[in-house]
Amino acid sequence: MSKQELVVLGQDCDADTDTGDGCCPALLDAPLDEAQAADLAKVFKALGDPVRLRLLSMIASRAGGEVCVCDLTPAFDLAQPTISHHLKLLKQAGLIDSERRGTWVYYRPLPQMTDRLAAVLTRPAGASAAESPSAESPSAGSGS
Amino acid sequence: MSKQELVVLGQDCDADTDTGDGCCPALLDAPLDEAQAADLAKVFKALGDPVRLRLLSMIASRAGGEVCVCDLTPAFDLAQPTISHHLKLLKQAGLIDSERRGTWVYYRPLPQMTDRLAAVLTRPAGASAAESPSAESPSAGSGS
Repeated sequence: MSKQELVVLGQDCDADTDTGDGCCPALLDAPLDEAQAADLAKVFKALGDPVRLRLLSMIASRAGGEVCVCDLTPAFDLAQPTISHHLKLLKQAGLIDSERRGTWVYYRPLPQMTDRLAAVLTRPAGASAAESPSAESPSAGSGS
Repeated sequence: MSKQELVVLGQDCDADTDTGDGCCPALLDAPLDEAQAADLAKVFKALGDPVRLRLLSMIASRAGGEVCVCDLTPAFDLAQPTISHHLKLLKQAGLIDSERRGTWVYYRPLPQMTDRLAAVLTRPAGASAAESPSAESPSAGSGS
């Protein structure tokens, strides 16, 4: 079920075995095409909210590997449905998975997706020579 | 000028020298506090749009280290002001910098920021044992 969500970053990727080093689009390596950009943007958009980032961080850093929703909500001054909505968006982005057991839903991280994002944001080998190409030059302005 | 934007991910970080390995919040390591999450969310939000991702990718992957805005716009079926708006958001997030020379504005990547995001998304050493803690267990449901 969650595997469908994991392939969001590329239909040619094997989400179960690939950790993002080989097959997936590298943002800094070559221009993304429209489909790659659309897939990636969904995941970054899910991360583009402070509450969702804190939720993901709480889930991913939990030693036991999963967190009851009942342990997440007290950290926020937000209603339970709002927290659930944010968790749903993280799940739809393939960043977490959930399992209902009795009264509560338990969330666990899907590290394959964060691994993949980290890989996407990592500069290709040998790119460091191009770092800050004009960092030392005087800036003539900064209009956009 | 751009250095003010680079410290967005943490006031205690030296944006000029640190590449994100040491001082900055690691999303997967410990729960982010509210300020850290707010700072990080701004950058991820800037990446949460397909046009901005493609623009960043085009700029970051350009061999010469910078791209004229006149070379970016033809790739999109969008008006120049729209492209400029997206570029402004990328710049405000500290992902790119710009310089006006004559008629055109030239954009270059700020790899410190993508390096930092990659570090934030990288699992702490030794965390692999916790990967997919219940991947093999039967799922009892997936309600959120």
